[in-house]
Amino acid sequence: MLDALFSPKSVAVIGASNKRLTIGYRIIQNLIEFDFKGPVFPVNPKDPFIKNFKAYKSILEVPDPVDLAHIVIPAKFVPSAVEECGRKGVKFVIINSAGFKEVGGEGIELENQCVQIARKYGVRLFGPNCQGIINTDPEVRAYCNFTFTRPETGHISIVAQSGGVGEVINQRFSELGVGVRMYASNGNACDVSIPEIIKYWGEDPQTKVIIVHIESLSNPRQFLEVARDVAAKKPILGMKTGRTEEGAKAVASHTGGLMREDITTEIIFEKAGVVTFRDQEDLCQSAAAFASQPLPEGNRVGMITNTGGPAIIATDILIERGATMPPLSKESEEFLKSKLYAAASVSNPIDVLATATPEHFRAAVDALQKDPGVDSILICFVTPFFAETEGIASQLSEAAKMGSKPIVCNLMTDKRQWTETIKIMRESGIPFYSFAEAAAKALSSMIQYNRLKTRSLGEPQIFTDVQKEKAVSVLARAKEAKRQFLTQGEANEIMLAYKIPTAKGALVQTVKDASEAARNLRYPLVLKIDAEGIIHKTDAGGVILNIQSHEQLRTEVSKMEKSFADKKVKFYLQEQLPAGNEIIVGASKVAGLGHLLMFGLGGIYVEVLKDVKFAVAPVSVEEARLMIESVKGFPILRGFRAEKGVHIDSLIEILQRISQMVTDIPEISELDLNPIFAYPENAKVVDARIGIAL
Amino acid sequence: MLDALFSPKSVAVIGASNKRLTIGYRIIQNLIEFDFKGPVFPVNPKDPFIKNFKAYKSILEVPDPVDLAHIVIPAKFVPSAVEECGRKGVKFVIINSAGFKEVGGEGIELENQCVQIARKYGVRLFGPNCQGIINTDPEVRAYCNFTFTRPETGHISIVAQSGGVGEVINQRFSELGVGVRMYASNGNACDVSIPEIIKYWGEDPQTKVIIVHIESLSNPRQFLEVARDVAAKKPILGMKTGRTEEGAKAVASHTGGLMREDITTEIIFEKAGVVTFRDQEDLCQSAAAFASQPLPEGNRVGMITNTGGPAIIATDILIERGATMPPLSKESEEFLKSKLYAAASVSNPIDVLATATPEHFRAAVDALQKDPGVDSILICFVTPFFAETEGIASQLSEAAKMGSKPIVCNLMTDKRQWTETIKIMRESGIPFYSFAEAAAKALSSMIQYNRLKTRSLGEPQIFTDVQKEKAVSVLARAKEAKRQFLTQGEANEIMLAYKIPTAKGALVQTVKDASEAARNLRYPLVLKIDAEGIIHKTDAGGVILNIQSHEQLRTEVSKMEKSFADKKVKFYLQEQLPAGNEIIVGASKVAGLGHLLMFGLGGIYVEVLKDVKFAVAPVSVEEARLMIESVKGFPILRGFRAEKGVHIDSLIEILQRISQMVTDIPEISELDLNPIFAYPENAKVVDARIGIAL
Repeated sequence: MLDALFSPKSVAVIGASNKRLTIGYRIIQNLIEFDFKGPVFPVNPKDPFIKNFKAYKSILEVPDPVDLAHIVIPAKFVPSAVEECGRKGVKFVIINSAGFKEVGGEGIELENQCVQIARKYGVRLFGPNCQGIINTDPEVRAYCNFTFTRPETGHISIVAQSGGVGEVINQRFSELGVGVRMYASNGNACDVSIPEIIKYWGEDPQTKVIIVHIESLSNPRQFLEVARDVAAKKPILGMKTGRTEEGAKAVASHTGGLMREDITTEIIFEKAGVVTFRDQEDLCQSAAAFASQPLPEGNRVGMITNTGGPAIIATDILIERGATMPPLSKESEEFLKSKLYAAASVSNPIDVLATATPEHFRAAVDALQKDPGVDSILICFVTPFFAETEGIASQLSEAAKMGSKPIVCNLMTDKRQWTETIKIMRESGIPFYSFAEAAAKALSSMIQYNRLKTRSLGEPQIFTDVQKEKAVSVLARAKEAKRQFLTQGEANEIMLAYKIPTAKGALVQTVKDASEAARNLRYPLVLKIDAEGIIHKTDAGGVILNIQSHEQLRTEVSKMEKSFADKKVKFYLQEQLPAGNEIIVGASKVAGLGHLLMFGLGGIYVEVLKDVKFAVAPVSVEEARLMIESVKGFPILRGFRAEKGVHIDSLIEILQRISQMVTDIPEISELDLNPIFAYPENAKVVDARIGIAL
Repeated sequence: MLDALFSPKSVAVIGASNKRLTIGYRIIQNLIEFDFKGPVFPVNPKDPFIKNFKAYKSILEVPDPVDLAHIVIPAKFVPSAVEECGRKGVKFVIINSAGFKEVGGEGIELENQCVQIARKYGVRLFGPNCQGIINTDPEVRAYCNFTFTRPETGHISIVAQSGGVGEVINQRFSELGVGVRMYASNGNACDVSIPEIIKYWGEDPQTKVIIVHIESLSNPRQFLEVARDVAAKKPILGMKTGRTEEGAKAVASHTGGLMREDITTEIIFEKAGVVTFRDQEDLCQSAAAFASQPLPEGNRVGMITNTGGPAIIATDILIERGATMPPLSKESEEFLKSKLYAAASVSNPIDVLATATPEHFRAAVDALQKDPGVDSILICFVTPFFAETEGIASQLSEAAKMGSKPIVCNLMTDKRQWTETIKIMRESGIPFYSFAEAAAKALSSMIQYNRLKTRSLGEPQIFTDVQKEKAVSVLARAKEAKRQFLTQGEANEIMLAYKIPTAKGALVQTVKDASEAARNLRYPLVLKIDAEGIIHKTDAGGVILNIQSHEQLRTEVSKMEKSFADKKVKFYLQEQLPAGNEIIVGASKVAGLGHLLMFGLGGIYVEVLKDVKFAVAPVSVEEARLMIESVKGFPILRGFRAEKGVHIDSLIEILQRISQMVTDIPEISELDLNPIFAYPENAKVVDARIGIAL
């Protein structure tokens, strides 16, 4: 589908130039230097020749078919250039020029124009305000990009919303000697989108790992769905930048994308099974391991070292990131005792000693490859002058070939002196790192991907006992009245319609109503004002707790009628629940995504400690359980010391039903069940607040 | 004091060898290759020549004075070699050989022997089981070490408990082209210690920044005191490895050091003003900035970029680490508007645009240097082919020389192509980094050091109203009786002696006693059993709350007498305090350091959320306040929503008095005030538990 973009048979450059410091020159230069396998057609209305090529006044004059055209002329001329591309039958157009959506105003208009023209002709657009693509495939060698880093051929494909970030990642791989498969940075992304590119690479057998850099997702739901499908097959490593308010501000000023809450993208990554990074170096170093090594089948790491300190560092990082360092099997220990120096340590980590021979290292790797209690191997290998380091590297290389477990290496050496050792290591395919931290982080990422890939999230449960129509009609009523928030009575109707257990209550309007309603309720009762425009009822003095009798109820209703005489009020009369563990469940709509659900312990936990967990709706039972179990205060819910815990399954069910509700009724813009009282045997909503997108 | 160690006039090698793969050969080779400025004397009982040098059968035969001798012979021969060094008048001995404390048993004995012999002669020992030292001073060029990395001359001095870690750090500086001043890795550290080395470098004018790697501190108090003095003058960058239980286990198996709780060292770093790192790469990259740049005077960063994405990343990191990105002054904005492209962004970050000229960059740096609202400058500089990158680098270099604010640069380039640009940047002294994260982290570290250096911790307050003698005598009584924990009555006596407000109470033994004591107390009362061996009184049924009358008191005392008839019990009768915010204050003794104080919110906060803060006693008012303000639940103490806060000064005073108590009475091994009830007007201890080091 994106074949003609990433593997064009021919490329035209509209705005090609003989001025060396222009993009119109550089793209042609890049194509030649990178040894592009097809013809290049410069388009320039004046110069008859560009570099060594015959130039054409218009793309319409190019005598052969054109798969891909760059447009590098000023923004205002771009729509008509797109038009000509359409007439010529060009398949893809990369608009490198800036001056579109990112500058606002007229730029937005120009960008829309281009999209409309392209649609008319069935031309696909890439950009505008973008770098372009690179494909290192020896049969293609397309460097349709004006940047300067020349990637080697490999198995990592990179799509970066920021060309700057993409270029830095490319540079790092180039420095590390790690190969790249394809590269794309699509700027404003008016047509060809990041999800579409990820999907395409999902089908590319030579792409073993995908890197994606995000500043803001323009279609988060599509990203989620595509990424989830692809991440089930091959690793996607994701990095979202602009997390802090200040960072996000910088995003807003640099791209035409929509601003979002800073962690939404990482919550989407988690759901999709994308491994999340917050550091470009970690991302690059981890990608190198993913590209060359098999995946670990679990989190149990066996370590080999010929120096103490760095192994300690690697251990710290692995443990902090959820790996384990299990004891070795008796067989492994016996085997190692028979092979290593007497003073060597044959437990995990295996310390082969600084003076270890190649055979010692080999024996240690073989033991770990064979040990059924170990899923992956980390080697700390320093090159003292008295060690046969080339022999060690060769043995590591051979051992790696014989086994099926991933190996990463912390190779500590002077790169200028130990060149042959490094060469052997490079040829072995074992990723090696100057720092123990980097090796451990790379391995941890692989372990994390394995966890994401093998977790069973299940499907959201569908409750057939809900009355969707009923809920929709309540909402419609409020919407018609242009009320942004439902009244308490309405909110409770919706809770009832979705069978979410809620404190029993009734909407009442007069003292008489109240007395009648109270017959069906059990004292003590709570009387709440229920009026438009009064959101914080307690602060407004509109909540009376602990009403014990009919007499008291009548008095309180009368009093409240007087206090709020100026407003058109109703009351909500509710059974007062015994105190339980306070829980908060929320949902908020995110444009283009659906809803984010939130779970937390109520009161201080949420307001001071921000101890909450988010997930993208709809959530399955497993996801709901994970949300609950991931809050820091979870031990309180599970039961702590003498305290009984609460009924977790009831909370899961509430999350599930809310999840179904907001999925059924996308008009709900926000929802807060705060508090829910959770008890050892069940859980009940005390107060529900529902907002509508008007 | 360590002159002859780091700047020896002559070096002998006892165990020098002609076998190329031995340490006895390599040290001589290293001295020659590093161009050591003094004579080298090989000592070997058999070979008459080692390499090109005349060898001596014994160090006693060396005809000239020897400042420093290496000993590389097997452990069991080392003591007599040390003896000979003593007789020869050698000043320092580096024992490279292993087989001492780190192997336990006989090794410990051998090490002690060496220490005793050395003391007798006034010889100082370095090691054993160590690498040695390096001094890059052009007048010295001492490479008294068997490793292989050749540092350039510079201003960073490194002391590493793990030689492996030290070597990796050296390698990284070598790769980065960053110079080193001195290096030391002293293994078992039987004599010359890390604090002594730090103190020495504190006086070395050429050392601008000190790096220290710690696995376990053998004398934490000495480290704290030395590091505090030195860190007040120049930056110390510290890294402690072996934080996780598994990592710490690996430490224990690799060194002869004492095991400690994993964060104690970082708490000591904080108090001493050492900048703490958890990643070697961050440490090295930050050191490069410290070594070349002036310190920032505050946390306000001005940023300049010619590419969007990386500036966003730098912003995220800076903000997350406590820096700010303030708006620029009107003058700066006006100046920039007059100098930059019209489309450039003249707010912070300043986006000069990809096509920016050298003059644009210069104007931006000049503006930030002049802007009084900015303390430091971060530049994101990508090198597109159409930019005059050499000119930009030259302008940055000149601008840096003209100003006094620190500058760091994220230089994004292909190092193989932009060699001249890199050369200019290197000569400028501006530290530059491939990744925005690294530049931002380095700058953040400098900002953090400035914060540590300029913070005013004050001196611990000394309360003269305490009765130390009284407290000591109570403790002595319990110690004599070999009781590991004080009774409640004793603990309360000590609280009283240190004027720590505690719920009023009395020790009683019989029903009659109780009735009498109750006359001086206010109901409701709490009756607690006070018996040896019953630590968890509530669990044992030994606490009766809410006693309202004399009658009830008598009944309860009688009942309890019966329940605990088998034990020799007393009772503690205490006024029951109204419920307050639960606080916990603790102290625990750490060998070689003194006491760690702990502050936290009680109950669930400490037990589930681990929301506590530690500090090394004694603490000042400022430190106590910082402990309280750093717990996550602090908003609850400050007063949250409608809730009144608690009296923070009362909590500070309790911390201060406990601090003084454990400093006065080091026999206290542990102390728990749990709970303290804090109120808006004061705070009172409900229960005190004190343990003694027997």
